[in-house]
Amino acid sequence: MKSEQVKRLFSPQPTAVVGASDRSMWALSVKRNLEADGHAAFAVNAKGGTFDGAPSHVDLASIPADVGLSFVVTNNAEEALAASAAAGIASLVVIGAGFAEAGEAGQRRQQELITAARAASQIILGPNNMGFVNFAENFAAFAQPVPPVRRGGVGFASQSGGFAAAALDYAHAKDVGLSHVITLGNEAMVDVVDCIDYFIDHPACRVIALFIETIRNPRDFMVAARRAFEAGKPIVACRIGGSESGSRAAAAHTGGLATDDRIIDAAFRQCGVVRVPSVEDMLLTAAVLDEYGILPGSRVGALSPSGAVGGIIGDLSDLHAISLPAFGAEAQRRLREEVLPEFAAIGNPLDFTAYVMVKPDLMPQSAGVLRDDPELEVVIFACVTCAPQTEAAAPMLGRLISSVVDQFRDSSKPLILMDFVDAGRTPYARSYRVERGLPYILPSIEKGIPALGRAMWWSERYRGGLGGRASGAAGRLEVAGASGNWSEAQARALLASAGVPVVPAVVARSGTEAVAAAQRFGEPVALKLVSPDVAHKSDIGGVRLNVSGDDAVRAAWEAVSAAGASVAGARVDGVLVSPMRRDGVELLVGVVRDPQWGLVLAVGLGGIWVEIMEDSALRILPVDRREIRSMLGELKGKGLLEGARGRMPADMDKLVDTIAAIGDLAVRLGDRIDAIEVNPLLVHGDRIEALDALVTWNEAADQQTENTGKDLP
Amino acid sequence: MKSEQVKRLFSPQPTAVVGASDRSMWALSVKRNLEADGHAAFAVNAKGGTFDGAPSHVDLASIPADVGLSFVVTNNAEEALAASAAAGIASLVVIGAGFAEAGEAGQRRQQELITAARAASQIILGPNNMGFVNFAENFAAFAQPVPPVRRGGVGFASQSGGFAAAALDYAHAKDVGLSHVITLGNEAMVDVVDCIDYFIDHPACRVIALFIETIRNPRDFMVAARRAFEAGKPIVACRIGGSESGSRAAAAHTGGLATDDRIIDAAFRQCGVVRVPSVEDMLLTAAVLDEYGILPGSRVGALSPSGAVGGIIGDLSDLHAISLPAFGAEAQRRLREEVLPEFAAIGNPLDFTAYVMVKPDLMPQSAGVLRDDPELEVVIFACVTCAPQTEAAAPMLGRLISSVVDQFRDSSKPLILMDFVDAGRTPYARSYRVERGLPYILPSIEKGIPALGRAMWWSERYRGGLGGRASGAAGRLEVAGASGNWSEAQARALLASAGVPVVPAVVARSGTEAVAAAQRFGEPVALKLVSPDVAHKSDIGGVRLNVSGDDAVRAAWEAVSAAGASVAGARVDGVLVSPMRRDGVELLVGVVRDPQWGLVLAVGLGGIWVEIMEDSALRILPVDRREIRSMLGELKGKGLLEGARGRMPADMDKLVDTIAAIGDLAVRLGDRIDAIEVNPLLVHGDRIEALDALVTWNEAADQQTENTGKDLP
Repeated sequence: MKSEQVKRLFSPQPTAVVGASDRSMWALSVKRNLEADGHAAFAVNAKGGTFDGAPSHVDLASIPADVGLSFVVTNNAEEALAASAAAGIASLVVIGAGFAEAGEAGQRRQQELITAARAASQIILGPNNMGFVNFAENFAAFAQPVPPVRRGGVGFASQSGGFAAAALDYAHAKDVGLSHVITLGNEAMVDVVDCIDYFIDHPACRVIALFIETIRNPRDFMVAARRAFEAGKPIVACRIGGSESGSRAAAAHTGGLATDDRIIDAAFRQCGVVRVPSVEDMLLTAAVLDEYGILPGSRVGALSPSGAVGGIIGDLSDLHAISLPAFGAEAQRRLREEVLPEFAAIGNPLDFTAYVMVKPDLMPQSAGVLRDDPELEVVIFACVTCAPQTEAAAPMLGRLISSVVDQFRDSSKPLILMDFVDAGRTPYARSYRVERGLPYILPSIEKGIPALGRAMWWSERYRGGLGGRASGAAGRLEVAGASGNWSEAQARALLASAGVPVVPAVVARSGTEAVAAAQRFGEPVALKLVSPDVAHKSDIGGVRLNVSGDDAVRAAWEAVSAAGASVAGARVDGVLVSPMRRDGVELLVGVVRDPQWGLVLAVGLGGIWVEIMEDSALRILPVDRREIRSMLGELKGKGLLEGARGRMPADMDKLVDTIAAIGDLAVRLGDRIDAIEVNPLLVHGDRIEALDALVTWNEAADQQTENTGKDLP
Repeated sequence: MKSEQVKRLFSPQPTAVVGASDRSMWALSVKRNLEADGHAAFAVNAKGGTFDGAPSHVDLASIPADVGLSFVVTNNAEEALAASAAAGIASLVVIGAGFAEAGEAGQRRQQELITAARAASQIILGPNNMGFVNFAENFAAFAQPVPPVRRGGVGFASQSGGFAAAALDYAHAKDVGLSHVITLGNEAMVDVVDCIDYFIDHPACRVIALFIETIRNPRDFMVAARRAFEAGKPIVACRIGGSESGSRAAAAHTGGLATDDRIIDAAFRQCGVVRVPSVEDMLLTAAVLDEYGILPGSRVGALSPSGAVGGIIGDLSDLHAISLPAFGAEAQRRLREEVLPEFAAIGNPLDFTAYVMVKPDLMPQSAGVLRDDPELEVVIFACVTCAPQTEAAAPMLGRLISSVVDQFRDSSKPLILMDFVDAGRTPYARSYRVERGLPYILPSIEKGIPALGRAMWWSERYRGGLGGRASGAAGRLEVAGASGNWSEAQARALLASAGVPVVPAVVARSGTEAVAAAQRFGEPVALKLVSPDVAHKSDIGGVRLNVSGDDAVRAAWEAVSAAGASVAGARVDGVLVSPMRRDGVELLVGVVRDPQWGLVLAVGLGGIWVEIMEDSALRILPVDRREIRSMLGELKGKGLLEGARGRMPADMDKLVDTIAAIGDLAVRLGDRIDAIEVNPLLVHGDRIEALDALVTWNEAADQQTENTGKDLP
C-alpha cells in the first residue's frame, strides 16, 4: 500500500544523511534539525572524516542502528538508492537536482531512479526538493534552518522547495500553527495527491494547504480533494504560474475558454477547494479554518474603536461576500440605552469613538450586545494587539482585548480578532496571547477580511455539501458514423435524441423545398449549408439569415448551395431551413476534451459576451444539476437570464435540464467525443432551443482520458 | 495668505499644551514627543499643579516664551481659542471631539469656532484629530507615541487620526521614509487640499500620500492635484468607505453610473492621482516613488533564485501591467555562453536554480547582463534580506545582495529589491541596508509588484503629461425654452447644432407624412412619440421599431399618437420617423451634474453592456480628446469598437470628436444643464449617429456648481 509507505516516510525514525559534508549547508541543516528534536542523524560519507564535529560513517552498513530514512544530499542519488536498498532502508528524501526539471536526459535519469526504487519497494520524496518537517511529531528532515513555527493543524505541501522556507518564515511571523510542511520537488513518486491522502489520515492535520504550480494527476486530485472535503478537512490552495498572457486570449469557442488555469479553477470550485492568490493568503485562510473551525455563517458584526477601520472593514467585506447586516432591534436598543453615549451613531461596523477613553467598559459591553444579537453569526474585533510604538502600552492593550474576548468565553459565536495593520508582533504580544488563551489574531484587516471571507465560503459549501458527480447519464452511447466534424444537421439529430430541444428545421434539397419550409415555419427564415466537410459555414457564405419572401428564399437556397459547391471536394447534402428567432438570450454550451482533465463543460453568455468579456463558467464532467445552477450563477451577465430590465426571465429548471442533457450526452459518448458545441442555445422564457451545433469526434479514442464518472465517488 | 498660515502651523515652534493633565495620555504624548526633539512644550492648566513632573502654567499669558502653537487637549476649545488669540497665538491644534462629527449641535459649535478663529486670524488643525508630525524638521505635535519612523520624502495626510497611528507603525515596520504625517479630523479650516499645497511647497516632501474618506472641495482638490502632478510630486491616495452596496447597483442611465466612488476614481485618474486599495499599498507605492523616482518604463527583467518566485512575479506582473519581455539576443547569448550552466533555461523571470550554490558569481553576473540589456528598463531582484530563521545567515545574505546591487552602482537603470514574503525585518537587516547604502527593499513580492506597477503607471502618465482640461468649448451657449425635459425632437436639434451627428428624422404630423418619410428614408423605420411631457416614451407604447410597408407605417403612426394622447395632460407634437439602423455598436454617452463635482461625462457600451456589466468610464468635465480616448480604452468591451471578430472597426477619431462635441456642449451650457443623455450613439465604422437623446435642464441654475473649466489650469 502506497499510503503505508508514505506514512512511514514521514514518521520519526533514525535517519542517515547520505553525502554529509561540512561544506554542505543542506546536510548540516538536516542533521541539526533532526538532533534538535532528539532524533538520531547518522552522517554517511564514503571518504569518512568528520561531519559537524563528529566522525562520519563510511557507508550505511556501518551504522549501528536501525535506520528508516535516507536523506540523500549527494548528487549520486542512484548509488545512495542502491546502498539504501541493500541496507533495508525503504524511505528516501533526494534533494539533488538534475532530474526531470533538467531536460530529456534528466527525465530519463528520473525514470530510471523510479524504476529502481519500485523494484526495491522503496519510496522517494523529491528529487529536487528540501525535505519535510513533521511538526506534529517533532521530526524535521529538512535541508534548511526551520524557524520556531508554532505547532498547529495546518498541513502544508509545496511543490517549491525554495519558497517553502519563505512560507515557514511567514507562518512563524504570523503565528500560523502547522502540523507539517512537505516539499515535493519533481514529485517522482510522492505527489500532492499523496500528501492530501496522508493529511486526511493524520489526526494532527485539520486543514490542508497547497502551494502548487501543476497538477500531474488531475483525476486523482479530484478524488482526493473530495475525500478531504467529506472528511471535513478544508483544502486551501495557491496555484501559481497560470497567467501567461497567451492562455487568457479571448476566444469564442469552448476550447479557447478552457485554459489550463481556468480548468484548475473550475476543478477547485467543484471539489470545495478554496483558491487563494498568494502563499500569504493560503497560510492565513488555513489558519482561520484551523483556529476557528467551520464558521456558522457570513452575517458578521464588526467592532472597532475607529470610524476609518469600520470603513476599511466595510469595503473589504463587500469584496469578499461578508454581510454586515443592521443590528437587531433589541441589540440597537441596548446599545442606545445601556451602552453607548447619546451622540453615538449605531451602525455596523460599530465605532466606539474616543468615548471609550472615558468609559472603558464600553468595549466589553458592546461586544456582549453583539454576542447576544441573533442577527449576527460571527463577530469581528479589530484591535491593536501590539505594535512597535506601543510596547509600553502593551499590557493595557492586552487587558482591553481580554475584556472583549472574555465576553465570548461561554458563547458558541466565534469572535475573530485582527490587528489594524501588519506592523509585526512583539514577543510580549505573542506570549500574552498564549498566556491568556486568546484566540488566533489575524495580522491585519487587509489580510484578515479576505481570509475570513474565504473561510466562510468553505464553511458554507461544507454545510451544503458538494454537488454530486453522479449525473443522469446512463450507459455508454454508441453512434454510427462518428468521425470527423459533424454538420449541423447531424449534430441536431444527435442532440435531439439526447433530449436537447433544437429549433425546428428541414433539409431542403431544392429551392422549392426551401420555399415550402419557409411557408410552413413562417418567415423570416435562416438557410444554412449542410456539409460534413465545412465546419465554419458562415465563413464561406454558407449562411443566410432573416430571409423573407418566396423569391428571396429561393435565391438564398441557390446562393448557399453555390457557396457549398465552391469548396473543392466538399460534399453538399442540401440546405437547412429553419425559422428565425428574434428574442432571447444567447448562451454557448460546450464540451471540450482536455488532455489531462478529460471532458470539460463550458457555459457562457453567447455572442459578444463570451468573445469580449470572457464570461463563462467551467466544470469537469460529470456534474449534477446543482453544480450547473452554480455555473449559471457565476456568469457576470446572469442578470440577463434573471429578467433584468424587463426581459423575460429564463425558465431556470428547463435551462439546467437542457445543459445537463448536453453534459450527459458527452459523458455517455465518453472517449469517442472530442467536442460538442451548442452556439447559440437561445433562451427566451421557457422556449429554450439549440439554434446551431457542432460535434467533433475523437479520431484517436483514448481510453486513458475517458471520464464517465464511474471511477469517482 | 492661507498657505502662509498653514506653513506656520506646521513649523517647529514653542508650543503650549492647553489642558495638560497627567490623566491625559494625549497631553503626555504631545509633551514627550516635542521634548524628545528638543522643542519647548509648556503645560497650561487653569488649576496649576504639575504635569509630567514639572509645574504647569495657569494660563498662556504666564508662559515666559514666544509660543507659536496651542495644542488644545481640553474639551473647552472655545476658551482655549480665545486665550490663544489674546496671547497672540495664531496656530492651533484642537483634538477634541463633539464637533461636526456629532450631529447638528456639533456642526453649529464647529461653525462658531471657525468664525471666531477667522476673526482673530487664527488657523485650526482639526478638531477631532491627533495632531501632526513634521519629520523633516523634527517637530512632533502628535497626541500618540510616535514610532521611530525613518525620515524620507513621503508627506502623509490622513483624515483619520486613530488609523494614522497604525499607518505610522506600518511605515516604521516596512522602512518607509516620511517627511510628515498630518491628521485632519473634521477639516474645519485645514483640509486635504491645504495639505497637498503645503506638501508641494515643502522641499523635503517628494511624494504625497492621502488616506481619505471624503473630498470636501472636489474642484479645489482637482486644481491642487494637477499642480502636484505638474510639480512632479506624485499623489498616492487610498479612499475608503465608498462601497455601500446601494451605490453599486446596476443602472442604465448616466446618473446611476456616476456614483460617488466612481466619480472620485475618475477624478483621480484624470489628475494623475494613483489610487490604491489600502493604507499599506499607499505607503509602499509612495515609498517606491520616493526611493526610486520616476521609473523609465514598464519593461522589466526579473532575477530570482527560485522558479516559484518567478511564477509569482509573472502572475502579479500580468495583473499590474508590468511587462516581462524576452531578453535581447545579446543578453541571451551572454547568459547562455558566459554565465549560466548548460542545462539552465533562459527566461524572464530568470531563475538561477541551485547552481548558484556552486557558482555564487552567477548572481552578480546575471544582474550585469540584465543591466546591459536594452530590452529592459527596470530590473527586479527578489531576495531574502533577512528572516527570523536566517539571522545567522544574514551577513552572507547581505553580501549576496550587495554583490547584485554593486552591479547597478553606475547604471541609470533602476534595480528594485523585494523580499520574498513579509516575515518582518531584523534589526541587522535594517542596519546593513543603511551601512551598505542599499536601495529601499519592498517587504514582499505580494505587496511589491503591485506597488511597482502603480509607480510605473504614474511614471508613464508623468512622461506623457496630463490631458488638458481645456476643451474645444468656446463661449457660453444660451438656449431658448431651456426648462424641464426636452423631447427627442428638441434634443436632436440641440445636439446637431453642436456638431453631434444624429440619425435623419422628420416629425410626421399625419400618417401620410409618416409614409412619405418612410419611403424617403427606406424601410424599415422607427416611429417615436414627440412630447415634451413624456420622458420615457417606450414605457407608454410611444415607440414602434422595425416598421415596413405603407399600411404598417400608417398604423404605427396612429398607435404612437394614440399612446401620447392617452397620457393625461401630455402635449403631443407629432411622431418622429427615422430609418432603422441594424449594424453597429451601441454606446451610451451622457453628462450628469453631480452636486459636488459639477458636470460629469459618462461613456459606456450601451444596452445590456452598461445595464448588466456596468461597463462605463467617467470624467469630470471639461476633458480633452486624449482623455476621451483613454475613456474608450477603459471599457471592458472596447474590443467591439476595435473590430473584434470581424466587426467593422470604429472610426476612433470621429467617435472621439463626437463625444467631445457632447462634452463641449454641456460645458458651454454650464449651470443651465442638468443632464444630457445620448443613448444609443450607434457606431458603425465611420457612421456615427445619435439614435435617441434626452436633455434635462437645471431648473435651479446654481452658479456655484458651474464648471466651464475657466477657473482651472
